Amino acid sequence: MSAPIRHVVIVGGGFGGLACARALAGAPVQITLVDRRNHHLFQPLLYQVAGAALSPAEIAAPLRVVLRKQPNCAVMLGEVTRVNPQGRSVEVLAPDGPRSLHFDALVVAAGMRNAWFGKDREWAPFAPGMKDLDDALEVRRRILLAFERAEWANSPEERHRLLTFVVVGAGPTGVELAGALVEIARRSLARDFRRINPTEARVVLIEGAPGVLPPYPPELRRAALEHLLAIGVEVRVGHRVQDIGPEGVSIVGTEGGAPEFIPSATVLWAAGLRAVPLADGLGVAQDRLGRLVVGPDLSLPGHPWIFAIGDLAASADAEGRPHPGVAQNAIQGGTFVAGLIAAGTPPAARPRYAYTDRGSMAVIGRSRAVVAAGPMQLSGRRAWVLWLFVHLMALVGYRNRLMVFLQWAMSFLTWERSGRLIRDRERAAALPGAVTPLAPPSAPPGSPP
Amino acid sequence: MSAPIRHVVIVGGGFGGLACARALAGAPVQITLVDRRNHHLFQPLLYQVAGAALSPAEIAAPLRVVLRKQPNCAVMLGEVTRVNPQGRSVEVLAPDGPRSLHFDALVVAAGMRNAWFGKDREWAPFAPGMKDLDDALEVRRRILLAFERAEWANSPEERHRLLTFVVVGAGPTGVELAGALVEIARRSLARDFRRINPTEARVVLIEGAPGVLPPYPPELRRAALEHLLAIGVEVRVGHRVQDIGPEGVSIVGTEGGAPEFIPSATVLWAAGLRAVPLADGLGVAQDRLGRLVVGPDLSLPGHPWIFAIGDLAASADAEGRPHPGVAQNAIQGGTFVAGLIAAGTPPAARPRYAYTDRGSMAVIGRSRAVVAAGPMQLSGRRAWVLWLFVHLMALVGYRNRLMVFLQWAMSFLTWERSGRLIRDRERAAALPGAVTPLAPPSAPPGSPP
Repeated sequence: MSAPIRHVVIVGGGFGGLACARALAGAPVQITLVDRRNHHLFQPLLYQVAGAALSPAEIAAPLRVVLRKQPNCAVMLGEVTRVNPQGRSVEVLAPDGPRSLHFDALVVAAGMRNAWFGKDREWAPFAPGMKDLDDALEVRRRILLAFERAEWANSPEERHRLLTFVVVGAGPTGVELAGALVEIARRSLARDFRRINPTEARVVLIEGAPGVLPPYPPELRRAALEHLLAIGVEVRVGHRVQDIGPEGVSIVGTEGGAPEFIPSATVLWAAGLRAVPLADGLGVAQDRLGRLVVGPDLSLPGHPWIFAIGDLAASADAEGRPHPGVAQNAIQGGTFVAGLIAAGTPPAARPRYAYTDRGSMAVIGRSRAVVAAGPMQLSGRRAWVLWLFVHLMALVGYRNRLMVFLQWAMSFLTWERSGRLIRDRERAAALPGAVTPLAPPSAPPGSPP
Repeated sequence: MSAPIRHVVIVGGGFGGLACARALAGAPVQITLVDRRNHHLFQPLLYQVAGAALSPAEIAAPLRVVLRKQPNCAVMLGEVTRVNPQGRSVEVLAPDGPRSLHFDALVVAAGMRNAWFGKDREWAPFAPGMKDLDDALEVRRRILLAFERAEWANSPEERHRLLTFVVVGAGPTGVELAGALVEIARRSLARDFRRINPTEARVVLIEGAPGVLPPYPPELRRAALEHLLAIGVEVRVGHRVQDIGPEGVSIVGTEGGAPEFIPSATVLWAAGLRAVPLADGLGVAQDRLGRLVVGPDLSLPGHPWIFAIGDLAASADAEGRPHPGVAQNAIQGGTFVAGLIAAGTPPAARPRYAYTDRGSMAVIGRSRAVVAAGPMQLSGRRAWVLWLFVHLMALVGYRNRLMVFLQWAMSFLTWERSGRLIRDRERAAALPGAVTPLAPPSAPPGSPP
């Protein structure tokens, strides 16, 4: 028998870590939840921040507020940089320097980060990812700035390049982002410029698989593709990215063929993720994406009281089918390991972690979605209503829920987007060159002579 | 007679520039409004963003949306870097490089920037100002991070230093910020930490003048001081800052005496402003704060069709009393010069610009304010209700108005703050040093054994 579990450290306050902390509320343990952010992020709505429809605070809840009424849980701000399994401690980069925390049980729920298929350094500057609020605000900035730059553009080619938006990856995030881009260009900004016509913007969605939403059932994938085409997205399935640079993106068919160059000032990356660096230092087998290969009880091999859950864990069911990297899997994993910790279940007596698929959904543009939940499959407007309801109910905190509902209601009625701010101190560096004059705008129809 | 005015360039989309553009809606001119931000900022509520009570988007409105229905006005994103009065053009640093714009009439409404009494380089890193949304978010970050750092602190001295907040300058912004800090510490965060007690935080307000809110009537200044003391702010009037560094701030009495050092990790600057650099290159006389000395018609001497309005203009009434740097003065100035431009009034026929004081107000903490409007003087709760009403009505856009009203209503009922996000990529650089262990938190009263 091992010593009793007194102190549990949880790394990460995402869906998994938070579910684990909450499930331990009544257990006779002290919990320290460490996160490098002070907030829990509701990632399924991140694309709405990127699309200027919601503000960051509306999809984030301070971890201290969420866990305020749980006296056995302390929240500490810091980044866990190393796990020492033998010494049972973690090293934390706290705001004022390195610290360490001892643990009796450890739950690693630190998730994934953006990754660009091994081309991080080359592609990241030109194709920002979509993993956290900083990412989403950078994407928002680039989208809004592209229209502002187009308004200054001197040549039709440059204008066209600035009004071409490329989204790489047609998973739920990519599909939702492409839909939001169309709505921004065709509706929200339609009447706001004097020199350009935002409705001429081009949105291209690139996916290596032969269809959009690769893991969804075939009928829904077909419906999603139809919706995307109906709202005007150019869908390039069966194409992979060959290169991304300041002028645009080169793609090539996965079946071969000549590469094609799409001139674009705004390429957005929704294609690749990789385990956080913390996972690399654990001395445990990792899969292709760096995720930790865990046992059937989600513990690390040889370390029965160190668990990995959520996206960071490469777990599978009894038939070897991998569990998906979705919120539901993180939440169920967190609750599962909390049960083992609270009961002090020895390794030999542990059941296998079983994931229950509660379904998946993706929204496409303004009022369409696809939903797959067990035998139920829905697409179109009814799916969208269900999507709205599920996401509103899942938002942490009634305050966020009410505010998001009101923002959505107003956006739906007015087509306006509440978050249209370009807020960076560092602006796109001005290019050296001569001062080029810009003629005053010509009078639009209906204006006074 | 000069040539007819066809193209008007307005530099800055603050209160003055926006009022001017709107007042020219029916005039037979084309307008180009240039701003380095894409939004109009409702500055009187900036301290609420700094205090995490409101989100940036709630006090900002995209300029393109505000001016959407005015076909004779184009908005261009860029920073005006130089005015060429003889050639009647401005140079603009646009997102993709320098451009120029020709004008027949120019309205310079670019406002003020933060300034640290000639110590910008030395003090700015340790005492951020409060002029735009970036400033307010940096202030918010530092306030929230100070509590997080205190939760990790190893010594009572360090904890005390991290929980001491110093506000320099007791004008409306400083008074409002100090009040917000008290509310954050005593109420919003009161139950959210396990090692520190946020209600022990100390808020110090420093002012060189012998009282708070220097330009207000004496009775209101007294009432404001009483309110501040009642909510627990340490008010140090008649003291000026001698030095600001990473460890805290040194102050000294304006009447002399030994300097005093206040250990503080969070010093906030609400004391000094200066004209934007654009004003320095105009070849026109400037006052002590760099503001442009304009004629009675707000035009620059020798340039009858170049005007400066708002904070950037050093204007005065017939008795030589300077006009105050408040929103009302900017709005009235913008409307005044729009009238001259629309009518093409030659310099000799122009009336003197006359400013009408509509009053001033400041809020103190949760439910008190002081208001001076002509003969009316109010303080306490009734003044606060008036403050709420006036600020809600003045917010640009019904959407912002509704959202702010709801945020305020919920904050008032729950004491929660909706914007408690620490969102920076660059975190406070970790200090080099040994890994110091932190004991697991002791069980708080009432938690399971």
